[in-house]
Amino acid sequence: MEQAKLDQLCVNTIRMVAVEGVEKANSGHPGMPMGDAPMAYVLWDRFLKHNPGNPRWPNRDRFVLSAGHGSMLLYSLLHLTGYPLRLDDLKQFRQWESPTAGHPEYCPEHGIEMTTGPLGQGFATGVCMAMAEAYLASYFNRPGFDLVDHCTYAIVSDGDLMEGISSEAASMAGHLGLGKMIYLYSANRISIEGSTDIAFTEDVGKRFEAYHWHVQHVEGNNLEEIDAALRAAREETKKPSLIIARTHIGDGSPNKHDTAGVHGAPLGPDELKLTKENLGWPLTPSFYIPEEALSHLRRAKAKGEKAEADWNALLKDYEKKHPDLYARWEQLQTGELSAGWEDAVPRFTPEDGPIATRSASGKVLNAIAERFPFLVGGSADLAPSNNTFLNGLGEFQRGEPARNIHFGVREHAMGAVLNGMALSGLTPYGGTFLIFSDYMKPSIRLAALMEQHVIYVFTHDSIGLGEDGPTHQPVEQLAGLRSMPNLTVIRPADANETAEAWKTALTHRDGPVALILTRQKLPVLDRTRYAPAAEAQRGGYILSDEPGGNPELILLATGSEVEIALAAAETLRAEKRRVRVVALPSWELFEKQSDAYREEVLPSSVKARLAVEAASSFGWYRFVGLEGKVVGLDRFGASAPGKVVMEKLGFSAENVVVRAKTLLT
Amino acid sequence: MEQAKLDQLCVNTIRMVAVEGVEKANSGHPGMPMGDAPMAYVLWDRFLKHNPGNPRWPNRDRFVLSAGHGSMLLYSLLHLTGYPLRLDDLKQFRQWESPTAGHPEYCPEHGIEMTTGPLGQGFATGVCMAMAEAYLASYFNRPGFDLVDHCTYAIVSDGDLMEGISSEAASMAGHLGLGKMIYLYSANRISIEGSTDIAFTEDVGKRFEAYHWHVQHVEGNNLEEIDAALRAAREETKKPSLIIARTHIGDGSPNKHDTAGVHGAPLGPDELKLTKENLGWPLTPSFYIPEEALSHLRRAKAKGEKAEADWNALLKDYEKKHPDLYARWEQLQTGELSAGWEDAVPRFTPEDGPIATRSASGKVLNAIAERFPFLVGGSADLAPSNNTFLNGLGEFQRGEPARNIHFGVREHAMGAVLNGMALSGLTPYGGTFLIFSDYMKPSIRLAALMEQHVIYVFTHDSIGLGEDGPTHQPVEQLAGLRSMPNLTVIRPADANETAEAWKTALTHRDGPVALILTRQKLPVLDRTRYAPAAEAQRGGYILSDEPGGNPELILLATGSEVEIALAAAETLRAEKRRVRVVALPSWELFEKQSDAYREEVLPSSVKARLAVEAASSFGWYRFVGLEGKVVGLDRFGASAPGKVVMEKLGFSAENVVVRAKTLLT
Repeated sequence: MEQAKLDQLCVNTIRMVAVEGVEKANSGHPGMPMGDAPMAYVLWDRFLKHNPGNPRWPNRDRFVLSAGHGSMLLYSLLHLTGYPLRLDDLKQFRQWESPTAGHPEYCPEHGIEMTTGPLGQGFATGVCMAMAEAYLASYFNRPGFDLVDHCTYAIVSDGDLMEGISSEAASMAGHLGLGKMIYLYSANRISIEGSTDIAFTEDVGKRFEAYHWHVQHVEGNNLEEIDAALRAAREETKKPSLIIARTHIGDGSPNKHDTAGVHGAPLGPDELKLTKENLGWPLTPSFYIPEEALSHLRRAKAKGEKAEADWNALLKDYEKKHPDLYARWEQLQTGELSAGWEDAVPRFTPEDGPIATRSASGKVLNAIAERFPFLVGGSADLAPSNNTFLNGLGEFQRGEPARNIHFGVREHAMGAVLNGMALSGLTPYGGTFLIFSDYMKPSIRLAALMEQHVIYVFTHDSIGLGEDGPTHQPVEQLAGLRSMPNLTVIRPADANETAEAWKTALTHRDGPVALILTRQKLPVLDRTRYAPAAEAQRGGYILSDEPGGNPELILLATGSEVEIALAAAETLRAEKRRVRVVALPSWELFEKQSDAYREEVLPSSVKARLAVEAASSFGWYRFVGLEGKVVGLDRFGASAPGKVVMEKLGFSAENVVVRAKTLLT
Repeated sequence: MEQAKLDQLCVNTIRMVAVEGVEKANSGHPGMPMGDAPMAYVLWDRFLKHNPGNPRWPNRDRFVLSAGHGSMLLYSLLHLTGYPLRLDDLKQFRQWESPTAGHPEYCPEHGIEMTTGPLGQGFATGVCMAMAEAYLASYFNRPGFDLVDHCTYAIVSDGDLMEGISSEAASMAGHLGLGKMIYLYSANRISIEGSTDIAFTEDVGKRFEAYHWHVQHVEGNNLEEIDAALRAAREETKKPSLIIARTHIGDGSPNKHDTAGVHGAPLGPDELKLTKENLGWPLTPSFYIPEEALSHLRRAKAKGEKAEADWNALLKDYEKKHPDLYARWEQLQTGELSAGWEDAVPRFTPEDGPIATRSASGKVLNAIAERFPFLVGGSADLAPSNNTFLNGLGEFQRGEPARNIHFGVREHAMGAVLNGMALSGLTPYGGTFLIFSDYMKPSIRLAALMEQHVIYVFTHDSIGLGEDGPTHQPVEQLAGLRSMPNLTVIRPADANETAEAWKTALTHRDGPVALILTRQKLPVLDRTRYAPAAEAQRGGYILSDEPGGNPELILLATGSEVEIALAAAETLRAEKRRVRVVALPSWELFEKQSDAYREEVLPSSVKARLAVEAASSFGWYRFVGLEGKVVGLDRFGASAPGKVVMEKLGFSAENVVVRAKTLLT
């Protein structure tokens, strides 16, 4: 078959498999796959370096479908190029337990690089895949050994570019000059409410030039234009590339193309028939795949096998020439920690004097940095406040990848960048004030959903931060984070609990961990009087108890309020009250303990329970029940010195004693 | 005194009052006020139309200090131009209960137009103040009566422009051609981590031109350049204006200017002395205000009085010429609702057949729209799904303000726009999927903090939405919203509860209200069998009970799970179990009821309680206690048809019955 004809056959095959998937599910988005099939075809057939036989090959190019609602396009490509995604799987699109979910769900076994759907996330995460590539290349590559050398491609949509997170990430990518990032922007000019003319008339190309991107314009169904643009984009190695492709949603459908109606609904049997006729496609069978197209597209397997074999040979040589680096490479793949790393974690004593948990965190981070070459991160312009800077380990800048990243005042992009780093095998951390976790919530959620090992360093964790006032004082953020599935939240009570929290964060590889740290100084608890800090790894533990352990009252607290609870307990004990103090730094970790352990810490028989936390009381009744009380904060904070605000709003030992007594009558 | 000298004296007075405020508080941000004093002076002295004697004059220009950390600049301007903010207040900067909080807090009595501090929010909210002006001008103005005719000014910072929300809002503003918006961008090129060169090197001017803004460049301490640019910006009436002013953080300080060190810390006594010497300022007294400067700046009062008097005369004429419109104007000012508006709210009957609460919401909204001319809103590109479109009431476009706003895929900017609309006296609503409330969380929080009357229409409220899968299925969003102070969350169980929820939303003027609505259809509950829907206004009520009201088990539910709880109750009653079903559509409203009422609904004696909600169980233990249980969702959802997902994850009457029995042993 003549090449141009074969190309068109392949494009239509990709297109129609996607359309039929949506039709069978009677749910989904056919319009985008129909319009984007040509550029996806050119990219996957002629440019993408991948091995469908081994979707996890480390040096594969990355492909992100940021416009996740077009998921059937991705499934179609994966199946047709030979990934282990069967046609039967595609026929189960959007059904219970099928790998072909409504929006792509991270599945490295199937070649799905990340979960997408919430717009802008894929765009931003792709940026960091490129950053991770740059960092790993600089770490591992040696003359003659370009071990890490791949591109990050994405298909992004109008909606992606409207979202603020994309602006943040695009500005970062341009600043860093990430030349191996190539994005195809499907400008189909249709969104759910209709033409993008009603809301989105900016000059996207000019905007991206302003970010210092390399911008090109092509017709979205002109294969040779797309080919030439991709070539030029690859040649431009100093700037990220945006190829603006004028596409047509529902391309191929005689009546629905270029309409919002084809965005989020199946074509319907009549229009499907007309579309097939229009494209010269057989009406039956459904999911028809022409043999010529399949065999052409499946060449990807042989090509990929060869590419990986060549690379494996390179890796073998590398192992001989650079055995130390090779060992590090292995470590990167397995995620194993260097033996004895825990010895590097500092310990703190009361004699060190009071220290904010954010400061303790910074000390821990710097103490362990040398042993964790793949621990990278930074802050959204708050490094001096978050104590996230790794001293002496360089700053990631254009052409100079390093471990300290300046995210700028871009919390949301930071969240996505951390996800991309984790997906690339690094262990990333990112800092900001706890209040601004709200700005990055959708990215945190994606980390949790993809079970990625991301560490958040959220400092300035309560009204205790003082003067900055209610705009900066978290209240409901802890409840919001604790209620998120798969996210582990740890709010340590002192420097040693902070060290323990870092140990958990570094070893908890199946989901993100948020460290919640104070701005203000806290005493280092005297562990000769109280239970050891290592207990914090259980999430909750008896910090201080009656001799004999038969309390009539349990005080529960986390973070800076543990000190207050301990002081209140002293007062109550002086009045002959039997008081237990339970530290509950991580509800999620505590929840994972045995029933017996939890019963030991919080015996059902003790109903007099008072929780103390300078945050919304929301959620605490799980531990104190209908008969307990919470000294919490169910209002916004106030601007004044931290100690004043804490005291005025009830966070003092005196008030805890008063409230406790109401439970003891 | 020669004008140029007087100008400089005024600039230095503004600057030094701000610096001394920070110094006295020993906390705050002196650098920005020092650098921005010149442009703030030109704007406030020569351009801003305002009346310090009546900060609430409706036709005043709006001024937003988006870079809220420079709050002392605003306080300095307000005091010096004659607003009711005393010098003693400025000396109490950042102290308990002082009106001069760390970041500006919305206070119309003092001329503080909105709360700022979280970066980007002021930028975006200013956009909508301009939109509100355009809408109100089109509604009220008549030939010869430019009743509404004012500009919106803002000072924005590097940090503001890095935040994604600003990109979203800037794109909207350019699209809508908001010509009466003039932003001064203080490009001081310093942020907390150091020079902006480390993270922010985009071409901001070009980027804003791409958004179709009018862009100018000036030297930030050249008063005449600033003057000329402001003039040109006012003359450009078809585009929003950005004046990029190269400013110098800490300008005036010999050793700290242009350094990150002066961003967020006082100058300290030594540098303060050197700064005073450098500026030719007397070393004592502190808070020195030269008489010439004060009397010059205070001319604002007389000018403002005259401007308002002229406008009042115009308003008097308007009252005569356009009495109907004048009545509407009065209504806008007082916020009173038209008598009898509740009659317009539709009622639903079971015979109407099942209806999704999102659809019921759309019907209510359209039924009442005519009676609420100041109810404006739209959706972040999901109007057909959110059912937020007001039929026949026009679409807000360039030069054509109307009540339906197309926000584009820009949830965060939408949140800020809603805030600006509410601050302008309108009653705004905005729709998106509940999951994407995460994208706009920081704006929702500001609405709550400023106690603004904003209505959110969050649809697709659970796994019941089905195929779109876990990226689109809310789990923890309800807990996150419910834990926010001042936000009222309502999740109605059927169409009639939805109508009641809208009644609450329209009358609840002292804070935002979030309506949480289903994608899927729900039966209209038969109110001849169950308690009236109006009870929903109490937040929680006994929907169905045993005769005699002596239950052994209470089932609690909200939204789509009420139907399940009712069915489960039937099964249990058939087995002679005494079951009460409590609908709890709004925890916040329920919390406001008397203790006696709450005890009546949930008697302490009944410990067997089972809550059913297709969302995180987080927070529910407040109602079920240590001995109760929750049929909740403490994992992410899954992609499959909604009924399948609900059933598989435990949201069926059968499972509720099984779980209930474990409580009844």
